Amino acid sequence: MTRAAQSVLRAESPLELPRPYLLFVGDVAEAAFAKTAFGLRDWAPEACVGQFSCSADAIDLGLPRLAPLEARARGARAMVIGVANMGGYIADAWIPSLVKALEAGLDLVSGLHAKLADVPAVRSAAEAHGRQLVDIRRPPPGIPVGTGEKRTGKRLLTVGTDCALGKKYTALSIARAFGDRGLAVDFRATGQTGILIAGGGMPMDAVVADFEAGAAELLTPAAAPDHWDVIEGQGSLFHPSYAAVSLGLLHGSQPDVIVVCHEPGRLELLGHPGFAIPSLEETIDLNVRLARRTNPATRCAGVSLNTAAMTGAEAADTLKTTAARLGLPAADPIRGGPEFARLVDACLAPR
Amino acid sequence: MTRAAQSVLRAESPLELPRPYLLFVGDVAEAAFAKTAFGLRDWAPEACVGQFSCSADAIDLGLPRLAPLEARARGARAMVIGVANMGGYIADAWIPSLVKALEAGLDLVSGLHAKLADVPAVRSAAEAHGRQLVDIRRPPPGIPVGTGEKRTGKRLLTVGTDCALGKKYTALSIARAFGDRGLAVDFRATGQTGILIAGGGMPMDAVVADFEAGAAELLTPAAAPDHWDVIEGQGSLFHPSYAAVSLGLLHGSQPDVIVVCHEPGRLELLGHPGFAIPSLEETIDLNVRLARRTNPATRCAGVSLNTAAMTGAEAADTLKTTAARLGLPAADPIRGGPEFARLVDACLAPR
Repeated sequence: MTRAAQSVLRAESPLELPRPYLLFVGDVAEAAFAKTAFGLRDWAPEACVGQFSCSADAIDLGLPRLAPLEARARGARAMVIGVANMGGYIADAWIPSLVKALEAGLDLVSGLHAKLADVPAVRSAAEAHGRQLVDIRRPPPGIPVGTGEKRTGKRLLTVGTDCALGKKYTALSIARAFGDRGLAVDFRATGQTGILIAGGGMPMDAVVADFEAGAAELLTPAAAPDHWDVIEGQGSLFHPSYAAVSLGLLHGSQPDVIVVCHEPGRLELLGHPGFAIPSLEETIDLNVRLARRTNPATRCAGVSLNTAAMTGAEAADTLKTTAARLGLPAADPIRGGPEFARLVDACLAPR
Repeated sequence: MTRAAQSVLRAESPLELPRPYLLFVGDVAEAAFAKTAFGLRDWAPEACVGQFSCSADAIDLGLPRLAPLEARARGARAMVIGVANMGGYIADAWIPSLVKALEAGLDLVSGLHAKLADVPAVRSAAEAHGRQLVDIRRPPPGIPVGTGEKRTGKRLLTVGTDCALGKKYTALSIARAFGDRGLAVDFRATGQTGILIAGGGMPMDAVVADFEAGAAELLTPAAAPDHWDVIEGQGSLFHPSYAAVSLGLLHGSQPDVIVVCHEPGRLELLGHPGFAIPSLEETIDLNVRLARRTNPATRCAGVSLNTAAMTGAEAADTLKTTAARLGLPAADPIRGGPEFARLVDACLAPR
């Protein structure tokens, strides 16, 4: 096997990504279709060297505009496709820019459905220049079956009453807060955007079901006793489509602490009318009950409420009444404040 | 694409297999390594035209010994590799026999880990003769995400306190009993041996986790209101490696009835010392609770105990005390008798 072919092959593992990045926004003129790039800019600014596009109309991330060669000279190791378009395709208009990046010595990283290596010009440029093509929706080879054996180190998992209500942002916020308090902590990403932000992770929804718990074990290996893994949750145990992902992640993560994420006012699962959102009490109870199979010490430290649709006064009132009802801290990590500090305290409280 | 290549491609779907079979036992001299062939002989005799081997020392299934051409003449449509060897490899010694079967106009079906199409001589013979290579461990393409929408028809799912304690045999026995009572019934297979016996099914452990519930929905489609799907369970909700498979199957199956399978005397999960086998009460409770998310009418009709290691008197006593304790029928389907008839009655009882 040539060195180039090996390089392309090795790129199948998303556990660790080449960083820092040059962010590519293609020809996208609307911010909504570049939310991967904005997420990276906001949550991993230290990993973003600059921005690059192939159209004068493309949106502006507010980062230095750099051609691939300049980005490489400033230390960039990969160009990330920061686009999240409908269908997840690689547009023909982007291909010359992708090839230019490979020629400049950058690897390519994509979270799109379409595979980079399926674009002949991209594949041959990667082989010619010995660069990696990293499709982060493809899990690494050789994921083991889970063992259930207890690992050292501490783990926190965000879980939810539904999809798409703040499990990633909550985990990122808690990981940041732990870091601010001087703790040893890793944010462990389980979805595409999280993987790009963290520079690595495991696309849990793309793993074969028999290996789901094993993938979570691989993502959160044994660590120093006082080290924290803060793990991005996926789906919901109550979701008729995705509960398998949620349970495999829960078992494999062996969380010491769970934080339940919820959007007040959401009454039915997104896209599944007729499926009521479970109560916070029921969500806590079921997650703790199932998590105890692999970590008998699991506890719920509190809840994270997504109050983006509320006024400040409404949010404050909701957080207060929820905390009183549950007897647990309730916070919106994006709003922060003393409520969030109390939630972080509770996560770290000795049993 | 040539017709031959299309044929090989189409073979990726294990939802429906070409039957009847010629059973190939290779050069296997020990019955333990041919349990796939024995399972087929015992549970799908109508699908077994004959046996074939490539060694005079090979085990005897007690079926007519037929060369592939003779088997084809007697109606066989595929040759099944009835071997379950350590490592799941395709032995070099078998290859001439596999090619001979393809030349005779038979498709090949394998439940081994190794892929038929990865053996060059087999692949080229399949292409040359327009035959299918069916690896039943590979799920069909295009499995949808689950919807959770209620489907017509009735469904029964066997669930368990652990792996490998009788979920498949229980489902087969109940499906047979339903048929004997004149009901419209399909056994729905979810693992390799079951898929071969049924002539189709879904290898649930090989499906990508995001599609696990959707795969179960695809396997058990809407049917006539009085039609029964009797579905082979997988794993256990309490299993630290495989619970994701069990939950996706439970949600997607939308069972009206569950039957809990258990082996009395097994105290820890197979291969997982330290993981206690859950009680029957806890297993019933958790399965019913989770199943109600997609079918609020789910109920447990009774339990199936694997008493193979007991004397007749011990088994009778265990069935009696278990039934009394739970207030539910308890039977060993392999022993049958009035206990099993009561379990079948309970499965069919109107709510």
